[in-house]
Amino acid sequence: MVMTEIEDLYAVVPAGGAGTRLWPLSRRSRPKFLLDPLGEGRTLLQSTIDRLLPITGAGRVMVVTGRTHLAAVGEQLPEVAEANLVAEPSPRDSMAAIGLAAAILEQRHGPVLVASFAADHVVPDVEGFHAAVRRAAQAARAGFVTTIGITPTSPSTAFGYIRAGEPLAPEQGGPLARVVAEFVEKPEAEVATAYLERGGYAWNAGMFVARTDVLLGHLDRLQPPLAAGLREIAGSWDTPEREAVLDALWPTLTRIAIDHAIAEPVAAAGGVAVVPGEFTWDDVGDWASLGSLLEADEHGVRRPGGGDEVVLTVDAPGAVVRADRPVAVVGLPDVVVVLTDEALLVTDAAHAQQVKAAVEGLAQRGRGDLA
Amino acid sequence: MVMTEIEDLYAVVPAGGAGTRLWPLSRRSRPKFLLDPLGEGRTLLQSTIDRLLPITGAGRVMVVTGRTHLAAVGEQLPEVAEANLVAEPSPRDSMAAIGLAAAILEQRHGPVLVASFAADHVVPDVEGFHAAVRRAAQAARAGFVTTIGITPTSPSTAFGYIRAGEPLAPEQGGPLARVVAEFVEKPEAEVATAYLERGGYAWNAGMFVARTDVLLGHLDRLQPPLAAGLREIAGSWDTPEREAVLDALWPTLTRIAIDHAIAEPVAAAGGVAVVPGEFTWDDVGDWASLGSLLEADEHGVRRPGGGDEVVLTVDAPGAVVRADRPVAVVGLPDVVVVLTDEALLVTDAAHAQQVKAAVEGLAQRGRGDLA
Repeated sequence: MVMTEIEDLYAVVPAGGAGTRLWPLSRRSRPKFLLDPLGEGRTLLQSTIDRLLPITGAGRVMVVTGRTHLAAVGEQLPEVAEANLVAEPSPRDSMAAIGLAAAILEQRHGPVLVASFAADHVVPDVEGFHAAVRRAAQAARAGFVTTIGITPTSPSTAFGYIRAGEPLAPEQGGPLARVVAEFVEKPEAEVATAYLERGGYAWNAGMFVARTDVLLGHLDRLQPPLAAGLREIAGSWDTPEREAVLDALWPTLTRIAIDHAIAEPVAAAGGVAVVPGEFTWDDVGDWASLGSLLEADEHGVRRPGGGDEVVLTVDAPGAVVRADRPVAVVGLPDVVVVLTDEALLVTDAAHAQQVKAAVEGLAQRGRGDLA
Repeated sequence: MVMTEIEDLYAVVPAGGAGTRLWPLSRRSRPKFLLDPLGEGRTLLQSTIDRLLPITGAGRVMVVTGRTHLAAVGEQLPEVAEANLVAEPSPRDSMAAIGLAAAILEQRHGPVLVASFAADHVVPDVEGFHAAVRRAAQAARAGFVTTIGITPTSPSTAFGYIRAGEPLAPEQGGPLARVVAEFVEKPEAEVATAYLERGGYAWNAGMFVARTDVLLGHLDRLQPPLAAGLREIAGSWDTPEREAVLDALWPTLTRIAIDHAIAEPVAAAGGVAVVPGEFTWDDVGDWASLGSLLEADEHGVRRPGGGDEVVLTVDAPGAVVRADRPVAVVGLPDVVVVLTDEALLVTDAAHAQQVKAAVEGLAQRGRGDLA
């Protein structure tokens, strides 16, 4: 596999999120993508862009983020031109974000391939990732909305699944590229186990590659008002009218995820393809997930973001600890302890998904400022 | 019951301890008795003295503490005269501390009653406590080393037990005062349950009342070198020779607890009495014990030392939390979270006794300074 750029491919990175999953490290004002929770020296957003540059070059990466995060994103990404940083006035879900990017790119360059990747996922195997994108691009050129389905390594209940159908023709990327038979929601544990035994199921990582004309064509048909609004905004984007049009139209756009707006209905009509993503991937969906990405230190403790203060455990295997001072954990397996200047979280791996409920609870207790 | 002083009784309060049980709030340099873990506005030492003053007056309370804590003790107890603050050069266990106080008091006042009470226990029912001391004083005057046995409220495995034997004569305080048949070590749960069912067992709270001549007489016989050393130090105490004698003899004194030196052997010979202590008592032996002394707030959280920052719990009943910032606890029942400027402890009620092991582990990890 040669590491050359994919000349017709533009990467779009929607960088949003509520910041509740890695609370209190992440916050509404400091979402996950701006953080370096693995202690790698690069934030999740920076790593995402680092991973894309070899196949796109600096000129073909576009980041869509909220106005409030635009300055921080720009600071973290000096290699991305200002013209390729798209600021949303307010969050309108993933279809508006990706659709706007696709419409701006088509306005500027004519029909091209857009490939959308979350700003806050982890993909250690960059070569495997590039190979999958290249394969997806081939199916996308053939007119499919193409997703990369991650080959599962466990019967996870944290992800939705993609069921693959018939292989595409060789010139469309088949037989590895296949038609998507169905997208399925996050399953129960037994169902997930059955998926893995049966084969043909992949994790839905929300990675899409499509031709702008195909994507926007589906949108015209399936969500006409949203498509019209996005095309009008894109038409004004590189003109002095941008702000006026954006302020007038953005608040009117339909809030919908790309999964519901396009992936599911187009899949039902046989228009979505899936290619295998045979690389390790994680959405860093909670502290337990983050902990699993880290190697334990010599004392069996995982330390997101490093830290050289002692963490002492007594009868407490599997601890995930981030704190700026010495910590003792006694008798609690798989505990998660995260101390910041503003707040302290104590949970365990089995309850890490419920941290979101705690953050919501803070608002009910009059401390929404901590969210 | 009249609240008059017990004219012949001097209270002795040994104020020592390693500071590991309520770590990291307590530290070697900041032992439990100097703290106010219940948030009452008085430290445990101050509350202990407050409890004793109605029966002794300010002139008949003596505190024995380490040299390193003398200044702090003096600051906390302005009502105790400097002459009644006894500083040990180093810890030599409870027999040396109580024996020295008894010998100094006998040197100054002739034979009197000494009553020894730990500096860091909690006794909310002061009247019940006074009644028990008064009853113990009567048996002590009759020549018994007399202990107050706490009437158990549960089959606790955290305390040693006292088995009561035959009642004393009425003029000795009987029939409520009884001879001690046996001191028994902390039992297993089933054994403790059997004790409560059988009756006649009390918790050993380490409270002793005895005539100085009786106590020191037993010591002369059972621990002759220790007794001789203590008598020589006491003889020099109120003279210019004190420091020289103390420095020469103190390091040579036998390290032994009063339980082993006197209570157990004298009980075996029928010389120890027990009177019922029908008051609530707790040794605040760990964070779980401390938590049980606190009322939960409206959200079910116990807050040692108060604190008005939000503590939010999700599926986490019974939390005991002390921290200077907002805390979220998710999915961990009976958790104990204690944050100080120096360190963070996370454990639960069932493992609170093992905090000691964590503190010892810190020394092994080169952070003995945190103990």
